[in-house]
Amino acid sequence: MDLNADLAEGFGIWRLGDDDALLDVVTSANVACGFHGGDPVTMRRVCTTAAARGVAVGAQVSYRDLAGFGRRRIDYAFDELRDDVIYQIGALDGFCRVAGMSVRYVKPHGALYNVAAVDEAQAAAVVAAVRDYDRTLPVVCSPGSTLAELAVGAGLTIVTEGFADRAYEPNGNLVSRTQAGAVVTDPEAVVARAVRLAREGTMVAVDGSTIPLRVASICLHGDTPGAAELARRVRDGLTAAGVTLAPFASRPEAV
Amino acid sequence: MDLNADLAEGFGIWRLGDDDALLDVVTSANVACGFHGGDPVTMRRVCTTAAARGVAVGAQVSYRDLAGFGRRRIDYAFDELRDDVIYQIGALDGFCRVAGMSVRYVKPHGALYNVAAVDEAQAAAVVAAVRDYDRTLPVVCSPGSTLAELAVGAGLTIVTEGFADRAYEPNGNLVSRTQAGAVVTDPEAVVARAVRLAREGTMVAVDGSTIPLRVASICLHGDTPGAAELARRVRDGLTAAGVTLAPFASRPEAV
Amino acid sequence: MDLNADLAEGFGIWRLGDDDALLDVVTSANVACGFHGGDPVTMRRVCTTAAARGVAVGAQVSYRDLAGFGRRRIDYAFDELRDDVIYQIGALDGFCRVAGMSVRYVKPHGALYNVAAVDEAQAAAVVAAVRDYDRTLPVVCSPGSTLAELAVGAGLTIVTEGFADRAYEPNGNLVSRTQAGAVVTDPEAVVARAVRLAREGTMVAVDGSTIPLRVASICLHGDTPGAAELARRVRDGLTAAGVTLAPFASRPEAV
Amino acid sequence: MDLNADLAEGFGIWRLGDDDALLDVVTSANVACGFHGGDPVTMRRVCTTAAARGVAVGAQVSYRDLAGFGRRRIDYAFDELRDDVIYQIGALDGFCRVAGMSVRYVKPHGALYNVAAVDEAQAAAVVAAVRDYDRTLPVVCSPGSTLAELAVGAGLTIVTEGFADRAYEPNGNLVSRTQAGAVVTDPEAVVARAVRLAREGTMVAVDGSTIPLRVASICLHGDTPGAAELARRVRDGLTAAGVTLAPFASRPEAV
Repeated sequence: MDLNADLAEGFGIWRLGDDDALLDVVTSANVACGFHGGDPVTMRRVCTTAAARGVAVGAQVSYRDLAGFGRRRIDYAFDELRDDVIYQIGALDGFCRVAGMSVRYVKPHGALYNVAAVDEAQAAAVVAAVRDYDRTLPVVCSPGSTLAELAVGAGLTIVTEGFADRAYEPNGNLVSRTQAGAVVTDPEAVVARAVRLAREGTMVAVDGSTIPLRVASICLHGDTPGAAELARRVRDGLTAAGVTLAPFASRPEAV
Repeated sequence: MDLNADLAEGFGIWRLGDDDALLDVVTSANVACGFHGGDPVTMRRVCTTAAARGVAVGAQVSYRDLAGFGRRRIDYAFDELRDDVIYQIGALDGFCRVAGMSVRYVKPHGALYNVAAVDEAQAAAVVAAVRDYDRTLPVVCSPGSTLAELAVGAGLTIVTEGFADRAYEPNGNLVSRTQAGAVVTDPEAVVARAVRLAREGTMVAVDGSTIPLRVASICLHGDTPGAAELARRVRDGLTAAGVTLAPFASRPEAV
Repeated sequence: MDLNADLAEGFGIWRLGDDDALLDVVTSANVACGFHGGDPVTMRRVCTTAAARGVAVGAQVSYRDLAGFGRRRIDYAFDELRDDVIYQIGALDGFCRVAGMSVRYVKPHGALYNVAAVDEAQAAAVVAAVRDYDRTLPVVCSPGSTLAELAVGAGLTIVTEGFADRAYEPNGNLVSRTQAGAVVTDPEAVVARAVRLAREGTMVAVDGSTIPLRVASICLHGDTPGAAELARRVRDGLTAAGVTLAPFASRPEAV
Repeated sequence: MDLNADLAEGFGIWRLGDDDALLDVVTSANVACGFHGGDPVTMRRVCTTAAARGVAVGAQVSYRDLAGFGRRRIDYAFDELRDDVIYQIGALDGFCRVAGMSVRYVKPHGALYNVAAVDEAQAAAVVAAVRDYDRTLPVVCSPGSTLAELAVGAGLTIVTEGFADRAYEPNGNLVSRTQAGAVVTDPEAVVARAVRLAREGTMVAVDGSTIPLRVASICLHGDTPGAAELARRVRDGLTAAGVTLAPFASRPEAV
């Protein structure tokens, strides 16, 4: 099983999350590429540390929106979104190159993640960007999302991910953050959900039913207080349960 | 002899210069990388067209200053400048990759060009960026500049360039733009100076003396009215004088 | 009748439209405030010239999107949009103050204009910004738009505007730009439509029917080739038809 | 005596310093205006809270440099700097207006503060901005600085400030941050220096000599760990020593 988290999301003087602590936990680092966060010095530092610790680096591509941290939907034209994504992948690849490696996957950030999960035009732009840049790069996305479907249709590899700290509907969708209980905050519950995801490929939905959720990666959040500590507990819980942790990029699994 | 010019310097809705016309004239395109100009859609378009026409693409790296078009000196810290340069080279390399090629050289833009020509710290940051990214990439710079010296000292290849439309001091420096006569505007004079540069490796300085100026590339300006037409006349004049035009990157010459 | 047009839409080195020529034509200048275009030097210059020529200045407020020129819908949170609008009005008011006047009205730009015409949340944020800043400032908008309704409901003054160069549906809506014939390009037709708008308060719709369209201002476009010349012809045509041209701000008319 | 500190220096999702705690300590808030930090929502919130607590608000104007937090010298042209400063004052004044007050003073931030203290051209641009915008606005600056001299020469009011946590040379200059001992970290020493500044108008320099330092405001730092707590101790120490704290803007003192 792979563990991924968002990193390098500070900008200039501003910090967000504890990159160094999370790089001890994750097996894949979603590195911000400068459009929602991620200044070049931070991007380089995270890439260098990731290389030293055997963590795979992926491009966490975003809308161009520092003021909104990439969390506001923007109605891009197709070619603008495609080329903004390529620009970001290329920029990050420069720092990967400096660190003796290369970008291993692409994962949309924030609003782009959510929009590309349901919007054909934006999902297609992300797919076109990856296909144009390097068709062997996996795309990290939610199972059943429009992005997943279009990526597979275009011959790309996808890596599906699940969230141990988010509640799921019986149909496999995430419970909206606007609803109570959308985020699971009890650390023991989060660890138990992660172990279930990794060992059984299932999740307990909000109605108590057990649903299948086959994922190749578990996404941990890193930008909230206590996030690094929770991530560490999830990692330890998975290891204690006999789950082997490794970057998916070394063994891509399509779903 | 190589002919280079600045391209892709629009941003979003705003255009600057006639990229398409200049791509018919130059052998090397200094492509803006988004920090002083150069949105991703424009960068991609120029790279694609350059590839189709056999024009080499170089990274025209700049300070992060859209509002000032990279023409204002900024006192960067060393690592900030080095990593801003790497970011830009990588981003452009992404579009080169999409076009089936790769970045062939690096040339600082605007104030960074001028500062790195005399300032050791900033020149060293540019050199470090190129060395970290790809030590085989040539750096385009003025002969005798600090950037040229530090690049050679670091084992990098340099490509020196001259300006057919700029007046020179007897010591080989450019006449400051703040002085009258700094820019040569008569098209026939510009063509004659280009031919002399290419065939004899000399220039007539402002005092009438002939000075040596051995360069591997001639820089043409593209952002003024009539620039594309003047560039075309220089190219035609060089060709008529028997000068073979080709990208330097295919035959790097250190000075 | 008032004539308004978008001005100051360059940014830094990049120019867009002929501000000086348009300031001889319009009675109200929608000045860009830095979020989609409009650098401070340009904003000041336009305000100073407008003051000298008796042209009223309004804040052309936009999403924060230089790369997209404010033409891409962004899903702002309410307070973010409200406060981005206030920020822009205030910034422009600074230059108006320097020029011995003050902002006379607010008009959303681009995608914000279109979204606020139909979306309650965004229209409400614009209304809240104007109400918080100065409840006597008129809002320029399309008749029948959501923005018009909410502004009136909040006790603000509105100034409705029409487009002489855009085709209208029989119901008073603009024909979508994605349809053929959405833009009227024949100068004589544009002038005739402007005169009809000003003198009769009617428009001929695409189906040939005559519809009422009572507006207090006519919007002229300034960013296309020949725009300033067309604007001049519209002004001359209106004057020749006996229409008195003056800024609406001196005599606000609610619809 | 007035106590001032930098506030509103976050941007979007990123926070810096504890605005709310500092607003309980200072009598004057230097509010970031969006160019080095300070998004509109944060600017508004700080203005509103300041108004409620009787804290004066000043424009903390900066170079346009989010990535460098305004800490890198930029070689602006005169009119660009002047108009960038006016833009920022105006934007902040919008939020002051919403809060029922107005901008009470102007203080340059970061590199602009340092450069305007010694560079005539940049100091003159700041002075021109304040004079154009509102010649009754005081400028907060260091005693003896070029900015202080030019401001006084232009008929502006200045408010000089001192730093209780910075070491001073015998000639009244600050000890450079590159030297050991430049920053005083012992809280008791900082409080004692503040009291001496307020009551006696003197400072003990690094060589042990006592120098005159007549200031109308003491600047507290807010962006370091423990900053708000230290600021609180300085305030309590001043109050215990019988110093009356109030915004200078209500009683401007030129030096």
